Amino acid sequence: MDFNNLLHNLDFPTAPDGLYEPIVYTLASGGKRLRPQLVLLGSQLFDGQEQDVQPAALAIEVFHNFTLLHDDVMDKADVRRGRPTVHVKWNENTAILSGDQMLIEAYKLLSQVSEDKLPRVLQLFNQMATAICEGQQYDMDFESREDVAIDEYIQMIRLKTAVLLGYALRIGAYIAGADDQQQQSLFDYGINIGLAFQIQDDLLDVYGDPATFGKAIGGDILCGKKTFMLLTAFKKASSEIRQELQQTLLRTDMTNNEKISAVTAVYDMLNVRQDAEKFIQHYTDNALLCLQQLPLNEANNRLRELAEKLSERKR
Amino acid sequence: MDFNNLLHNLDFPTAPDGLYEPIVYTLASGGKRLRPQLVLLGSQLFDGQEQDVQPAALAIEVFHNFTLLHDDVMDKADVRRGRPTVHVKWNENTAILSGDQMLIEAYKLLSQVSEDKLPRVLQLFNQMATAICEGQQYDMDFESREDVAIDEYIQMIRLKTAVLLGYALRIGAYIAGADDQQQQSLFDYGINIGLAFQIQDDLLDVYGDPATFGKAIGGDILCGKKTFMLLTAFKKASSEIRQELQQTLLRTDMTNNEKISAVTAVYDMLNVRQDAEKFIQHYTDNALLCLQQLPLNEANNRLRELAEKLSERKR
Repeated sequence: MDFNNLLHNLDFPTAPDGLYEPIVYTLASGGKRLRPQLVLLGSQLFDGQEQDVQPAALAIEVFHNFTLLHDDVMDKADVRRGRPTVHVKWNENTAILSGDQMLIEAYKLLSQVSEDKLPRVLQLFNQMATAICEGQQYDMDFESREDVAIDEYIQMIRLKTAVLLGYALRIGAYIAGADDQQQQSLFDYGINIGLAFQIQDDLLDVYGDPATFGKAIGGDILCGKKTFMLLTAFKKASSEIRQELQQTLLRTDMTNNEKISAVTAVYDMLNVRQDAEKFIQHYTDNALLCLQQLPLNEANNRLRELAEKLSERKR
Repeated sequence: MDFNNLLHNLDFPTAPDGLYEPIVYTLASGGKRLRPQLVLLGSQLFDGQEQDVQPAALAIEVFHNFTLLHDDVMDKADVRRGRPTVHVKWNENTAILSGDQMLIEAYKLLSQVSEDKLPRVLQLFNQMATAICEGQQYDMDFESREDVAIDEYIQMIRLKTAVLLGYALRIGAYIAGADDQQQQSLFDYGINIGLAFQIQDDLLDVYGDPATFGKAIGGDILCGKKTFMLLTAFKKASSEIRQELQQTLLRTDMTNNEKISAVTAVYDMLNVRQDAEKFIQHYTDNALLCLQQLPLNEANNRLRELAEKLSERKR
């Protein structure tokens, strides 16, 4: 199922173009289309028909892109996937309104789910959407706090990132006829790979190879973003080292490279990387255990490979 | 059916409070609750059961309040219903994200519609939501244009304001079992009172009595807002008067009262009020004609009174 093609063929009106052009632009920006693939895999795991999950798969991808659009406004991000963000290319009002319309478009796609499945799919989708907004709220709250614990961080990324993967799989499985227990195991797999994925992302921001990682390293450090790496460093450091680290992050008299090197040196000293790798392995192991509760078939193999690949992403 | 009470009793989570407090604040700000009343009237017109339309009625009111929240961000409005807007009381990111969650809450309420009605109600709701976003886009587009024709303006307010009334009624009627033709007549009534209402609003901004109108007059004039009044003045004026009027609107060396008086004087001279009253009467007459195609009962009486009241709003 070619999701890039299906998204490209979504027929949006041409007027008002100020509303729809940014939507087309956002959906054309590429990306791995992981989430709709997960809807499909969830269905294939239970021998479902692909056309039965197509509307939900597209709805989830459109929803995901809506969250990126609004997040970029809230984070004041200028670039995404190498292109100007919508509020830069157009303006902020456009980013807000076109984002709103994207969310509505996601529900329009969802309404094409077969009538017998629609009530429950809508309910799951709404739970998913709520979780993402709650996660984003916690992420924003953390910006002004100096005392964020690791488990709070995990709770935040669970909501903001992992839940979407869990529900994508679950919705695919539900439509294909999986029972509640099977849906739950698959959902748990999704949560666990989501957590592993995000912590891996945090690790690669510091230790990744820009060539394979796809973006420059140290971006999170420069933003002072409260990632797994930084929060682990705060936790492990003496109060003296912690204070120094906090001050380094705020300094404006260093070059970017100097700052990244300085912070990375503290991470090296505290062996933060090891903590990250332990957590990633833990969540990956959980995910693989979940798969053992599920039908063993080609889709299961692919989900296993996905989990293994996520925890081995190139440095 | 006490909509204020029902909205007050919607149980939102307490955490994260940064996400949910602004939603509670927005829904507590009062308002006439016209839109859910219309859902109920649409149902009563066809002898429907009130509990059958309660979820949809609440969904539409929550949706309406979501549009106000995001509109206030886009319009940079500081006050609504005498209280600070959400982006002023909290901040802009909160207004965006809590608005997003409000839209999701509307769909959560909608998902409580009975299963046999849900697919069509969802479809109608999505059409309605799309129309409002399109209307808001046109309204924003008009800000930078000097050549907006009256019929373009009518098309914009049809989408931005009137359609919500039409669909509120239609959804109530559909749930109560009205057929397509009946739904259409009721929808048309809603569109017509919506248009009458908005033009009346534009008129009252210039000629209203602040005491009965509920807000100061001349706000639209000071913003240079392209209302029915201004666009009619542009259309009727000689190019000399039009240019003078455009310049007056841009002047920064007049007091507010001076500007309002100057523009009102031009409106008086061009008898813009008469045009507005003619349009209001025309749409009200259309609305009353639509009611004659519908069951004649207590609900129909109330809809007739509503139409008549809208076109007689105190000056």
